[in-house]
Amino acid sequence: MSSDSAVGDFGLIGLAVMGQNLILNAADHGFTVVAFNRTVAKVDRFLENEAKGKSIVGAHSIKEFCSKLKKPRRMMMLVMAGKPVDDFIELLLNEGGIEEGDIIIDGGNSHYPDTNRRTKYLASKGIRFVGTGVSGGEEGARYGPSIMPGGNSEAWPYIKDVLQGISAKSDGEACCQWVGDEGAGHYVKMVHNGIEYGDMQLICERGLGLSNKEMGDIFAQWNKGVLDSFLIEITRDILYYNDEDGSPLLEKIMDSAGQKGTGKWTAINALDLGMPVTLIGESVFSRCLSSLKQERGRASKLLQGPTPSFSGDKQKFIDDLEQALYASKIISYAQGFMLMQNEYSWKLNKPEIALMWRGGCIIRSVFLKDITTAYRNNPDLENLLFDDFFNKAIHNAQEGWRNIVAKGAQWGIPTPCFSTALSFYDGYRAENLPANLLQAQRDYFGAHTFKIKPEFANDKYPVGKDIHVNWTGRGGDVSASTYNA
Amino acid sequence: MSSDSAVGDFGLIGLAVMGQNLILNAADHGFTVVAFNRTVAKVDRFLENEAKGKSIVGAHSIKEFCSKLKKPRRMMMLVMAGKPVDDFIELLLNEGGIEEGDIIIDGGNSHYPDTNRRTKYLASKGIRFVGTGVSGGEEGARYGPSIMPGGNSEAWPYIKDVLQGISAKSDGEACCQWVGDEGAGHYVKMVHNGIEYGDMQLICERGLGLSNKEMGDIFAQWNKGVLDSFLIEITRDILYYNDEDGSPLLEKIMDSAGQKGTGKWTAINALDLGMPVTLIGESVFSRCLSSLKQERGRASKLLQGPTPSFSGDKQKFIDDLEQALYASKIISYAQGFMLMQNEYSWKLNKPEIALMWRGGCIIRSVFLKDITTAYRNNPDLENLLFDDFFNKAIHNAQEGWRNIVAKGAQWGIPTPCFSTALSFYDGYRAENLPANLLQAQRDYFGAHTFKIKPEFANDKYPVGKDIHVNWTGRGGDVSASTYNA
Repeated sequence: MSSDSAVGDFGLIGLAVMGQNLILNAADHGFTVVAFNRTVAKVDRFLENEAKGKSIVGAHSIKEFCSKLKKPRRMMMLVMAGKPVDDFIELLLNEGGIEEGDIIIDGGNSHYPDTNRRTKYLASKGIRFVGTGVSGGEEGARYGPSIMPGGNSEAWPYIKDVLQGISAKSDGEACCQWVGDEGAGHYVKMVHNGIEYGDMQLICERGLGLSNKEMGDIFAQWNKGVLDSFLIEITRDILYYNDEDGSPLLEKIMDSAGQKGTGKWTAINALDLGMPVTLIGESVFSRCLSSLKQERGRASKLLQGPTPSFSGDKQKFIDDLEQALYASKIISYAQGFMLMQNEYSWKLNKPEIALMWRGGCIIRSVFLKDITTAYRNNPDLENLLFDDFFNKAIHNAQEGWRNIVAKGAQWGIPTPCFSTALSFYDGYRAENLPANLLQAQRDYFGAHTFKIKPEFANDKYPVGKDIHVNWTGRGGDVSASTYNA
Repeated sequence: MSSDSAVGDFGLIGLAVMGQNLILNAADHGFTVVAFNRTVAKVDRFLENEAKGKSIVGAHSIKEFCSKLKKPRRMMMLVMAGKPVDDFIELLLNEGGIEEGDIIIDGGNSHYPDTNRRTKYLASKGIRFVGTGVSGGEEGARYGPSIMPGGNSEAWPYIKDVLQGISAKSDGEACCQWVGDEGAGHYVKMVHNGIEYGDMQLICERGLGLSNKEMGDIFAQWNKGVLDSFLIEITRDILYYNDEDGSPLLEKIMDSAGQKGTGKWTAINALDLGMPVTLIGESVFSRCLSSLKQERGRASKLLQGPTPSFSGDKQKFIDDLEQALYASKIISYAQGFMLMQNEYSWKLNKPEIALMWRGGCIIRSVFLKDITTAYRNNPDLENLLFDDFFNKAIHNAQEGWRNIVAKGAQWGIPTPCFSTALSFYDGYRAENLPANLLQAQRDYFGAHTFKIKPEFANDKYPVGKDIHVNWTGRGGDVSASTYNA
């Protein structure tokens, strides 16, 4: 095919809902997009329908796809994470005829270690690889998603115009900034999804004997305040949404939550890094518990609890609930940013991350504007809770928060994420925790040794020394070096 | 070396505290043990001291070690998990001159996937490999640990006498039974350690303004009731233990908990299997939080909370605390046994597992006798909470449990494990959870589809069908197949 057919500014592989909408979005911004899909019929169907009359051309083979792109080629894949990504990379290398300097962007939810590997592999072939998080669902993809690109930084100057063009804007700033090397973009997207799991679970932790209409009104109200966000907004819409028979559709939906794994990845990463990201962990486990639908049905007949009695001021309770949700959300984001303060070498830019999450993505909210401000005021902020705004916010919210957790416990209403957030807050602000007893136990039964508190250090127990005490008088004085109990 | 020097019934490699004590234990039971250690000086030191006058011989090389063992050789390694285990296996194969039918036992805390791999690898060479959990710390190793062997089942008849001989006994039954193929033994030990993490954290969740002596008296009291267990007993001893200056040593110990990873492995395995083992997860995260000692110090000056006011009946509160600990412990074990009901092919024998944990190991307790009874009464018991005894127990305990979680929230005392256990209980017994809203949100923003509750199924929404609703009227009707937000 002759090069004068190279009309495409941007190529996209994978015509599922996200891919189609990103193409339409790019076309709206004046780019000529080349569309390809493994099942070629999907290309024709798309051209004849949604893409009709727009600056979108189709390709029926990888070769044609590449030949229709201007150089350096800018190609994005939106295909299933895992093997399909590697397969398409090989196709582009072997059949596509891509050349040095070309740019491949993986816009799927790849696991960041895969993106680390692919960036190195393609760099060795002179191809610039970018792994980018894209959040916003079909709506976001169509009208402006949050885009979190990382990988080979040489690519950024070439793709900045397209990605920032199609991305969401927040107060005139593009919700798309360069995140960092290798898998940094997909890592930040992973944490974003983990936080999204938490936000969704927090919104679910209600349980007042209210009608869907009443709850909808409450969420509509909350959406005008500190909780103003996309997820609160759609929750309002969902609560208001009636089925054809006029009854709320929500009540008919199976209460068994699915997951695609990114929340799980975040929780596992937190465990691996030793960071107490408890709220995301509980939100993932909550989905696991919900999926035991049949077993819960049997348990509900065998396990008893109190009968909630909603005495007292209903509005006061609703206000407390708002405070519990707000405070727990602050904890969740504080934990998420603690996780991103990790041992990887990417030096993630926190103000920019908060900016990227402000618009377009699922967790977009006014809240993230406050986080952006906090980190712009102090990029070295040790913890979000130390920022004046959030410090005041959590202090103001804690009374209602504590009431809700206490009432949930008394009434038998599960509040796993409100509760874990509160336990984290009270543990984090505790200068002394009972972990000294835990260390004593470990030394008692496993000779695992302990360290002395500096204020009690002396010649016998110097600071930093691993100390083993023969607690029983029996047993040896050998301290454990190989045993892990 | 001539074979008449082959006097050893059992060989042990690795003379750290656990190894030394297991050797002394085996010698006490009439076995002649061959001892080897990479640092040979340790062998001589051991022979001249602890091993003096006992049926223990030393070896100064792997070759000598093997030559001193009767055939088929029975050799146990107690070395650091990971590469050292593989290194010693290669040493035994290449320099030791072991032969077909010989048996290698890994008694360290290896990760079960490694044990799967090693069992297959050595079987291909005619060597029988066993990976066994050993729990009990130095005391247990010396006087009878809990032993959880799995791997190549051909080995069991040859090692049963030694392992059951040195293991703890409970009501005359050995706390050592064959667990299953490949990594089953190390898997059960991993879950044991996870549960141990939970038990230890639960014991730490106190926080009444009591002296160590008073707390010691309370634990001494609890140790006579349903909580009677090794960990409660040593906690009593630790609370009573005074430093040379007469003040409690506990108060001087750094409250920054260490971990060797087995609890983390259990939590990650739970996330991978989608099992809501929340209490172990929180106990691991609690150790992570405690290790942020410096940051907590700064946080304690910036983050405020209520000032606990211990009004009311102190004894009532202590009794509630006992109930909270007991109920949370029931949940933790129920979750642990849920995890062992997993997709692996090992068909773990629950009554036997409970038996193995009854004596010798760190989590030994009367409690495990009740669990053994429960699973012996009904090996197919779906959940520990469905057993009459535990069903009654948790119903009796829940009032005090709920009071403690509520008071902890109001007083600002962190109770991460009491709280997550209660949220699990209330979620598990909930026939309907708000996960229907979560599914609606996922379909709203990501076209992830949902299923209908059977009672609401009709021609438009058949049972089991993946349903996508166009919630906004905008956007497409394409449902997501590749996107994971």
